[in-house]
Amino acid sequence: MAQDLQKQFIAFDASLPADADAFVRMQHERSLLSVFQSIPFPILRDARIAYLQASKSSADIIHFLQSYRPNLAIYAGSFNPFHLGHLNIVHKAAAIFEKVIIARGINPEKDTDEAIWNAGALDMFETAEFAGLLTQFIDAHAQYGNVTLVKGLRNGDDLDYEVNQLRFMETMYPQLKVVFIQCDKEYEHISSTALRNLERIQPGLSKPFLP
Amino acid sequence: MAQDLQKQFIAFDASLPADADAFVRMQHERSLLSVFQSIPFPILRDARIAYLQASKSSADIIHFLQSYRPNLAIYAGSFNPFHLGHLNIVHKAAAIFEKVIIARGINPEKDTDEAIWNAGALDMFETAEFAGLLTQFIDAHAQYGNVTLVKGLRNGDDLDYEVNQLRFMETMYPQLKVVFIQCDKEYEHISSTALRNLERIQPGLSKPFLP
Amino acid sequence: MAQDLQKQFIAFDASLPADADAFVRMQHERSLLSVFQSIPFPILRDARIAYLQASKSSADIIHFLQSYRPNLAIYAGSFNPFHLGHLNIVHKAAAIFEKVIIARGINPEKDTDEAIWNAGALDMFETAEFAGLLTQFIDAHAQYGNVTLVKGLRNGDDLDYEVNQLRFMETMYPQLKVVFIQCDKEYEHISSTALRNLERIQPGLSKPFLP
Amino acid sequence: MAQDLQKQFIAFDASLPADADAFVRMQHERSLLSVFQSIPFPILRDARIAYLQASKSSADIIHFLQSYRPNLAIYAGSFNPFHLGHLNIVHKAAAIFEKVIIARGINPEKDTDEAIWNAGALDMFETAEFAGLLTQFIDAHAQYGNVTLVKGLRNGDDLDYEVNQLRFMETMYPQLKVVFIQCDKEYEHISSTALRNLERIQPGLSKPFLP
Amino acid sequence: MAQDLQKQFIAFDASLPADADAFVRMQHERSLLSVFQSIPFPILRDARIAYLQASKSSADIIHFLQSYRPNLAIYAGSFNPFHLGHLNIVHKAAAIFEKVIIARGINPEKDTDEAIWNAGALDMFETAEFAGLLTQFIDAHAQYGNVTLVKGLRNGDDLDYEVNQLRFMETMYPQLKVVFIQCDKEYEHISSTALRNLERIQPGLSKPFLP
Amino acid sequence: MAQDLQKQFIAFDASLPADADAFVRMQHERSLLSVFQSIPFPILRDARIAYLQASKSSADIIHFLQSYRPNLAIYAGSFNPFHLGHLNIVHKAAAIFEKVIIARGINPEKDTDEAIWNAGALDMFETAEFAGLLTQFIDAHAQYGNVTLVKGLRNGDDLDYEVNQLRFMETMYPQLKVVFIQCDKEYEHISSTALRNLERIQPGLSKPFLP
Repeated sequence: MAQDLQKQFIAFDASLPADADAFVRMQHERSLLSVFQSIPFPILRDARIAYLQASKSSADIIHFLQSYRPNLAIYAGSFNPFHLGHLNIVHKAAAIFEKVIIARGINPEKDTDEAIWNAGALDMFETAEFAGLLTQFIDAHAQYGNVTLVKGLRNGDDLDYEVNQLRFMETMYPQLKVVFIQCDKEYEHISSTALRNLERIQPGLSKPFLP
Repeated sequence: MAQDLQKQFIAFDASLPADADAFVRMQHERSLLSVFQSIPFPILRDARIAYLQASKSSADIIHFLQSYRPNLAIYAGSFNPFHLGHLNIVHKAAAIFEKVIIARGINPEKDTDEAIWNAGALDMFETAEFAGLLTQFIDAHAQYGNVTLVKGLRNGDDLDYEVNQLRFMETMYPQLKVVFIQCDKEYEHISSTALRNLERIQPGLSKPFLP
Repeated sequence: MAQDLQKQFIAFDASLPADADAFVRMQHERSLLSVFQSIPFPILRDARIAYLQASKSSADIIHFLQSYRPNLAIYAGSFNPFHLGHLNIVHKAAAIFEKVIIARGINPEKDTDEAIWNAGALDMFETAEFAGLLTQFIDAHAQYGNVTLVKGLRNGDDLDYEVNQLRFMETMYPQLKVVFIQCDKEYEHISSTALRNLERIQPGLSKPFLP
Repeated sequence: MAQDLQKQFIAFDASLPADADAFVRMQHERSLLSVFQSIPFPILRDARIAYLQASKSSADIIHFLQSYRPNLAIYAGSFNPFHLGHLNIVHKAAAIFEKVIIARGINPEKDTDEAIWNAGALDMFETAEFAGLLTQFIDAHAQYGNVTLVKGLRNGDDLDYEVNQLRFMETMYPQLKVVFIQCDKEYEHISSTALRNLERIQPGLSKPFLP
Repeated sequence: MAQDLQKQFIAFDASLPADADAFVRMQHERSLLSVFQSIPFPILRDARIAYLQASKSSADIIHFLQSYRPNLAIYAGSFNPFHLGHLNIVHKAAAIFEKVIIARGINPEKDTDEAIWNAGALDMFETAEFAGLLTQFIDAHAQYGNVTLVKGLRNGDDLDYEVNQLRFMETMYPQLKVVFIQCDKEYEHISSTALRNLERIQPGLSKPFLP
Repeated sequence: MAQDLQKQFIAFDASLPADADAFVRMQHERSLLSVFQSIPFPILRDARIAYLQASKSSADIIHFLQSYRPNLAIYAGSFNPFHLGHLNIVHKAAAIFEKVIIARGINPEKDTDEAIWNAGALDMFETAEFAGLLTQFIDAHAQYGNVTLVKGLRNGDDLDYEVNQLRFMETMYPQLKVVFIQCDKEYEHISSTALRNLERIQPGLSKPFLP
């Protein structure tokens, strides 16, 4: 990947004027996050630092990247399947936070249907899987960023369930930060359970509700 | 205020090493937002730029300040009174966003009890009042920052009410961004209505629930 | 009105072929209900019978009209104001029942804003007012038709409230028939209370939600 | 069945006076629907037309039957088992619509207990089974009648679930018409799930709640 | 009252056999609570002790009465009006606790309609009024009895409201004991608000729902 | 056990002064219930009567014990596992009733994890198991005591479920008495289902929520 990124960095830097001041150059580095949104930040950052060092960039820019802690949203769920309502939440989170990580909880007891999960529409976002506690996953990412857990909501019943989950997570990880985002009206009725039921009645019926 | 701020800027800059690089100096400027949290950003920014220009700071730092769009949370309500549950939401929002503005909606038909509102505990935050549509207030602040509306939640019924409000605001202001934040368990039962009832039974009873 | 109707009946009958059999002529009489939807059925029926008798129509058609009991939906509320969500329910009811009567409950203690109520869009439907018990209003219409009370729903909380009302009405009028109709997704957030609040903030804001 | 029906038609016509006018004869044909309620309308209609043609009835009556589109309620569920609360809804629907079809959804993945379903009390109604999408079943019946889907309600939570289902059906079948009917107070606590639990504790315990 | 009670005590003791052992005599004293249910226990107890002392009863019985702490239920509300649903809760509480006190909260800002409150059906129970905090009222009664606050429930929404109230009371009176009692099905829809609305439509309509 | 109890009775009686009057002695007998709380009352009572007869206690005390009907709370559930929220309800019930029996429903179709159930913290309470109908279990205990069923609540959804259960039990056992007790705020999010999920993610995670 490092090789590949190097080429992309060259293209990325093409737009930067030669006489850019320190501020403009830092803004340029920050925009890495959205341009290379699907790449985990630590990988992106380290590849970029290596590239900047190789190209003899000034020390303050490298210093900036080394210290930068992005505002991260982790959007977690079982996503079985990941549907348009989920995507709606991702887009809303992406408008508020610098980066969204879609984190899919793996249940070791259940077979997971990879075909369902690998929806092409997610290519432009960073996706990850976690098998244990979500708080451990969050904590791992809190090493390099300012993490907020994003929970999607459809209605008041959803909230009551989510808040109970939240209270458990708080006993294990008191520094947890959480925001709830309401999906748009047109997605309020879509749930993974309903889509699995549709598939059972007739395979393919859930298509219109998937990304 | 400008005079006053000038003195405070001198103190604020005392901690900045003389050989700070561009990155360190920009981080220093960003921390203005939390150090001077109670001052509206446009006022703070303009005073700071004037101060930096007077003290012949480098152009890139001034450029940085001129272009900087902070991540703003607007936390709006009637706050009649503003209680510990509200303060809890403000603290949670302040951990996620760079700046929180507490915006109190004024109902022109009702007398407002200023004594109730002017709780000293809010001195450290920026507070504002608005009389018309919240979306107009948000739009005014969106001129200089990336605004997210923060709504506090206590339970699922709250959410159903808030989502209906949200749908109206979206028809008037489609670019609205909203997150819901759940208050801590210990504040879930506190509401302004309940506190006003307590005061009616015996003045002073609501004290333990106010900041 | 009788004079006026006579002219309209002539136009209405123009489409009826001279050699129509009994069935076609009865279907023609039934369609009176939708063509003259805004006229109370007893008035329409009596005017029509007088007209048919004057024009020496056959006895079986007059017998049909005398005996006909239409399937009536009564859609009752305070409609303060009558908004697009209400109209949505009326259209849904009109697709199921032969005739919909929009019945507006008058609260003698409150001034009613006639301007708000007299929305032009209701001209094509029969509208009525009632001041006392809804069950008495329903009973009066049950003398000449098969009446079903239609209640609009927006969410589960609405239903709990409506069912309590229903239980009271059943103790007073056990033969009551009621169906609930859910409004379309796009109207779920609209309520008369919310619209009155919008008007208070700025007159005219409720316009986009009115017929 | 045709043979059988012929005999019943003779009995059915016994009550019709010889000098009945066209209106009285058509009312007589309409009452077929309630007298032979358990027979699907297309079968009933075709048998009746054959019978009327054989007995040289007048053309307008046959024309009436050929064109008649009854107001149908389809009451669908998994009815596992069909209990007194379900029967309560059927009776309420039968008071509003000309005919009720009880449509039981078959889940191909689950064994169905035929003993539970074949409750004798349903003999007087038309019952049917469907295996795929309910909207397809409704559409098939919409070929010959004006179909409304009837959903039974017990409480507000039921409604939230049902409305989500409804939204899916609407995307597949936009012309869908749906009414919700609340069961009587005394049946509000009865659910098929609860009855299956009772049977598990002690076979026979669900008896008092079945038709 | 003391004079009056003395006569009633003579009648009350008539049923006690002359050779009753200590246990039978104490049971006899305990039954005072239900026989004289409408009299506040401290008044009843003191009158009884005076009576027993005058009639030279044995010291252990007097000792028993002096030390006896009854299991008290306080059933509090605004009871505006007190309706059959309230009475249903009182009867259920009376089956569990030794004594029920119906405590009506007085709102000093509102005129109270005494006619509504003084329903004859309450004559057989102890009734009281309180103007300030319910916890103070409870605490006063906890001086001589083991007090449990009884709250009536109609549905889940009621509970959410009541639990919020409860949390406030607990911060003021941590030793508070509370049980919730669900009314019978037939009273679930009755509320004081609904009855006041009925009266507004037509005076007398709420009669069937009052004791 | 009888042998064992005899020794404990001697210790129990040590605190009783020789000149205790009948009242003091009966209070002493009543306190048996709390001192020997884990022993079923019929066993305790019979052992105590045998002991008192052997030690030639006076007849009225024995008469008292023979006739005594304690106020019993039965707290029933599947307790899979029994967690701190359940224990919280037991303590609240024990403050209101003379004795609490923790009754665990056994599902014959499911393997029960005895290790989960036999939490040491329950040693001080009477525990029991029942396999059939809860109403039969209650009825058996109503032979010797005044039984109230205690149901724990966490939120309004819980209540709706519990009330449906209650309605079924009432049809089978109309004399049923039930109170609901709300758990303390800090336990509202704990459910057996959530704890089982935690164990599935990582064995031992549910520990902090168990007695």
